[in-house]
Amino acid sequence: MGNGFTVGIVGATGQVGTVMRRILAERDFPVDTLRLFATSRSAGTTLEFRGEQIVVEDVATADVSGVDIALFSAGATGSRAYAPVFAEAGAVVIDNSSAWRMDPEVPLVVSEVNPHAIAEAQKGIIANPNCTTMAAMPVLKVLDAEAGLTRLIVSTYQAVSGSGLAGAQELAEQAEAAVASGHLLGLVHDGSAVEVPAPVKYVRPIAFDVIPLAGSIVDDGMNETDEEKKLRNESRKILELPDLLVSGTCVRVPVFTGHSLSINAEFAGDLSPERATELLRDAPGVVLADVPTPLEAAGNDPSYVGRIRADEGAPAGRGLALFISNDNLRKGAALNAVQIAELVAASMKATAPVAS
Amino acid sequence: MGNGFTVGIVGATGQVGTVMRRILAERDFPVDTLRLFATSRSAGTTLEFRGEQIVVEDVATADVSGVDIALFSAGATGSRAYAPVFAEAGAVVIDNSSAWRMDPEVPLVVSEVNPHAIAEAQKGIIANPNCTTMAAMPVLKVLDAEAGLTRLIVSTYQAVSGSGLAGAQELAEQAEAAVASGHLLGLVHDGSAVEVPAPVKYVRPIAFDVIPLAGSIVDDGMNETDEEKKLRNESRKILELPDLLVSGTCVRVPVFTGHSLSINAEFAGDLSPERATELLRDAPGVVLADVPTPLEAAGNDPSYVGRIRADEGAPAGRGLALFISNDNLRKGAALNAVQIAELVAASMKATAPVAS
Repeated sequence: MGNGFTVGIVGATGQVGTVMRRILAERDFPVDTLRLFATSRSAGTTLEFRGEQIVVEDVATADVSGVDIALFSAGATGSRAYAPVFAEAGAVVIDNSSAWRMDPEVPLVVSEVNPHAIAEAQKGIIANPNCTTMAAMPVLKVLDAEAGLTRLIVSTYQAVSGSGLAGAQELAEQAEAAVASGHLLGLVHDGSAVEVPAPVKYVRPIAFDVIPLAGSIVDDGMNETDEEKKLRNESRKILELPDLLVSGTCVRVPVFTGHSLSINAEFAGDLSPERATELLRDAPGVVLADVPTPLEAAGNDPSYVGRIRADEGAPAGRGLALFISNDNLRKGAALNAVQIAELVAASMKATAPVAS
Repeated sequence: MGNGFTVGIVGATGQVGTVMRRILAERDFPVDTLRLFATSRSAGTTLEFRGEQIVVEDVATADVSGVDIALFSAGATGSRAYAPVFAEAGAVVIDNSSAWRMDPEVPLVVSEVNPHAIAEAQKGIIANPNCTTMAAMPVLKVLDAEAGLTRLIVSTYQAVSGSGLAGAQELAEQAEAAVASGHLLGLVHDGSAVEVPAPVKYVRPIAFDVIPLAGSIVDDGMNETDEEKKLRNESRKILELPDLLVSGTCVRVPVFTGHSLSINAEFAGDLSPERATELLRDAPGVVLADVPTPLEAAGNDPSYVGRIRADEGAPAGRGLALFISNDNLRKGAALNAVQIAELVAASMKATAPVAS
């Protein structure tokens, strides 16, 4: 073995797995050996990494010993089944699913926000936050550090790639069909609605429409979706603010990649838009933008933040309104997982025995 | 003259003017004579009404005497120039622009919400609210009547037809070009963003994107757009709540027709989601929907409201979150104008001298 690591990607053929592989190469992560895992359906196919063809292994039957770091994007069911197997065999698992995020023995880490938490991994598993929550954390962390965040009201504009390839395909197919109908301007000219094919993946059409139901309603009588619960619970855990008040409305929009959030935030102390802007100018993982858009964020790393204003409705004027856009496949999933891997790699090197 | 009115539409060739003409026919408004007006560029063209071809007159040179009710959708500049001319000649002007909305001598009316206000018209002009504000008013009025509305936090999802035909054309052209590129799924597959042509009408691309800047920034140092100001000022005037706290973030989305609003509302008194749902079930101009969408609202009259939940972050739990979709060209513009005309017609008939 060289100076690097044996890295595994579990769920290697999915869209986040694909971006993980790309980002490992882009960031020149010290990979000696890359192993790719998927379900039996995709096992046996080959994928490229740094010019080399790698055969995808069946996660259910592979011998996973020797893997140092395993990046999981295999859904909650896959993670519950296989993350302990990899951890047991000695790997540090960095998991992109919701399976382990709220486990008190599993840290939930945004690399710029709470890197110290990786030391608290008691099961060999570190969780990667939900993409919607992730986008906001680098922004909210610096504002919380300054003025003490107490309350969030969030409306989201979530891209279809947040629900996997099937979501992106549904938008593409509906948009293509609507364009092919030659009737895009119909509603404007003759009062009839644009023709969009019936939905399959989503509960309503997504092309030229918005759906105020991202995820599914949780059966606890609160009429909130799992996405809205994640936003509350994960924000509390990552920011270490167990009493943070969070009301989220998670909405799917016809955007391929790039999640956006319209946020009204309230603070215990004073925080002017000017001071917030000054703090965000220097915040890691954050870029100021006059008009942040998902199309601008797509393919890039930072959370773009703008439209920073006072919310004069907040008690004692201690409120801000702002808008954030971030690539849900990169920072929202694959990039942060690789950034956690970099933190893990650094801590492994720091604690490794000196070679004799 | 028969039993009806001489009705004028000013801005008859635009998209709202077109819908006004359609709704006058749909609702069987008592029109004896319809006169159509536009700028000299469009004057001379003919448009159909109830099977009759009507020649469009040049608003700048026409003799406007004899018009009983004039429906204006001619932009603020056009309204400022010509609404007083029509009013002077004896017409009641119902104006869809922002020109007169905040004039204390001009009532701002949503037909289900404050019909009594038409009696307060002191200049012969009645204003029709902004389409974004309009969508929320029938919903918020009944909640305010029950529990006393104190604060609104609103993020919008506004259709391109809210910025006129040019907005709808820009979305159509960009969507067509993106589909033609054959590269819709690019980012998902190879990390490149979907290719959308450079914007002309908007400050950013609108196809497969969202733009958190609907309207333009008002130069008062608050970093709010005119759309966000209208939402605050018009809500206060229509609901007769001069101290209502309103923070809006107005966002353009790639939807042709149908504005949506994600609203967190706070009240002076208790209001449970169950009680709010019960009130909204019977509210005029409102229809309950599990998942309200703009595509469902387009072509229909009501404000669709759903996703009604408690916002437990509001003081004493007196908060609700909800989502509204409404057709911005119908209720948001043309329909409410015709509904005001119906109120005006009824009051004219009620006060007309008995024929000798």
